[in-house]
Amino acid sequence: MKTKILTLLKSSDDYISGQELCERFGVSRTAVWKVMNKLKEEGYEIQSVPNKGYRLIGQTDILSESEIVSELTTSWIARPTYFFSKTTSTNIVAKSRLEEDGKSGLLVVADEQTSGRGRRGRGWQSPKGQAIYMSLALKPDFAPEKASMLTLVMAYAVCLAIREVTGLEAAIKWPNDIVVGKRKVCGILTEMNAEPDYIHSVVIGVGINANQTEFAEEIRETATSLYLESQATVPRARLIAKSMEHFERAYEQFLKNENLAFFMETYNDLLVNRGREVVVLEPKGNYEGIAEGINESGELLVKREDGTTTEVYAGEVSVRGIYGYV
Amino acid sequence: MKTKILTLLKSSDDYISGQELCERFGVSRTAVWKVMNKLKEEGYEIQSVPNKGYRLIGQTDILSESEIVSELTTSWIARPTYFFSKTTSTNIVAKSRLEEDGKSGLLVVADEQTSGRGRRGRGWQSPKGQAIYMSLALKPDFAPEKASMLTLVMAYAVCLAIREVTGLEAAIKWPNDIVVGKRKVCGILTEMNAEPDYIHSVVIGVGINANQTEFAEEIRETATSLYLESQATVPRARLIAKSMEHFERAYEQFLKNENLAFFMETYNDLLVNRGREVVVLEPKGNYEGIAEGINESGELLVKREDGTTTEVYAGEVSVRGIYGYV
Repeated sequence: MKTKILTLLKSSDDYISGQELCERFGVSRTAVWKVMNKLKEEGYEIQSVPNKGYRLIGQTDILSESEIVSELTTSWIARPTYFFSKTTSTNIVAKSRLEEDGKSGLLVVADEQTSGRGRRGRGWQSPKGQAIYMSLALKPDFAPEKASMLTLVMAYAVCLAIREVTGLEAAIKWPNDIVVGKRKVCGILTEMNAEPDYIHSVVIGVGINANQTEFAEEIRETATSLYLESQATVPRARLIAKSMEHFERAYEQFLKNENLAFFMETYNDLLVNRGREVVVLEPKGNYEGIAEGINESGELLVKREDGTTTEVYAGEVSVRGIYGYV
Repeated sequence: MKTKILTLLKSSDDYISGQELCERFGVSRTAVWKVMNKLKEEGYEIQSVPNKGYRLIGQTDILSESEIVSELTTSWIARPTYFFSKTTSTNIVAKSRLEEDGKSGLLVVADEQTSGRGRRGRGWQSPKGQAIYMSLALKPDFAPEKASMLTLVMAYAVCLAIREVTGLEAAIKWPNDIVVGKRKVCGILTEMNAEPDYIHSVVIGVGINANQTEFAEEIRETATSLYLESQATVPRARLIAKSMEHFERAYEQFLKNENLAFFMETYNDLLVNRGREVVVLEPKGNYEGIAEGINESGELLVKREDGTTTEVYAGEVSVRGIYGYV
């Protein structure tokens, strides 16, 4: 009920009477009063005026299950959403939740991670109260080799959401990152548990630097936050909800043909690598070229000096002038 | 020390004196005597004759860590081997062991599984004392899409081992099974935990119907055991060790070029599907054709009525006359 009352308060500019709330949800005045107190405790500023009722006049950045769900307009993605004020790693929790109850589309969000994970077993700094750590768990029935495209679908969705919520010109650094200017604001880690022809689970983890005011020295040059770039506090719950909306829309498009043709052009417009010199880091040796954009399968087309074009399937690509260039 | 003494007893046709054993391993007579008693308890028939020493005169089918290791001649595959008289699923245990201590090549063997797993979330009947349940855990540094070839490498290795140990004309049913006659004696389940371009772990699970004397009614038509086919008790530990030896040899070949060209011809000679009518079961609709063998990537080449050849990546293929044909 708390989430429903919150959603109603948010959608109304005017006061809503206690009487109306009681009737609408079939509960007592005391129950309504208790919910209002709970919301105030969580950080919402709620005005209550005798004979008028309740009005939501403001909020800072509140992260809770109710707040996220009150912002959600998806039909199945992020339903349910599980929120933790602290957990080990949202990827780990999302995977085990999916394996327990099997609901594809579930989302796990945390306000703090004690063992946040990055790519290839690296760590991911996960301080409390400032960033977004979320993992979406899916059980798709397409072939495992297509799962890498989900990273691109998520990057696309989060990039659009960041632009919408903050107004910043966020761009995608293929395949896993989102940057503002030359610095990283988001990283994506897709992990899969599969047989060669059968996916048991895919978890797409997203870490967004939302409201950090500073970074540890070792990443200060390469990382920034949406707050630092926009000078405004980002409402994390809204950014999560918008990301999930864009993801749901794009994912349903993706499922029709199981390729990325439907968003290739828009994606390439958002691509920071495009037209730039890149270095592709491969086990057999690095090579340079100009990134031309992705193809239908999400591979990065890299034009090399000898005129040939290489399709890079996945992996590490550095862009000159962007963090991580070697 | 038990394993070392056992290995020595096995390699010798003659008596080995207690004195020699004491000197060789730097232990007391009492210690040697204790080991002999332990081995007898496990089912070994050991003759001890005053003034001559000890001699191993026989054994039935004993499955233990010592017995497996005493048969092993590999350099790193199945080292270490963990044996359980009972466990949930060797695939689950092998995966968590690899993630804990990271030793690629470790093998988990069980005499009984309480929740044996088959493909696509199906179960695998795992009664005690008769069959082989084993899982090899690897942490390879090739790309995830190559992991499906490991199923074929394992099928090849186990097929050769079955032929060597039992003399039966075992054949491979692409990609996951081994048959004798028209019935299944072995199933392989490969599971992978990976990022799109980075394998965290691959576990290759193998279930072999070794010494079962009967099967549940629902699989009686489609399953058989090596015992039922050969009328001889199969020494499971030796079959495990031989499988691992063949796997190690083939896997090291595989790693050179990361394809299956090196064994393609031999593999195709072992292929029960070859030259036969098969039905390929696909989500988009089944189709028929004649299986011609595998290509370098392990895909099954199926020649269709219209003369075209399809490369089947992985999945379910039924062979006319072999169990599972629909």
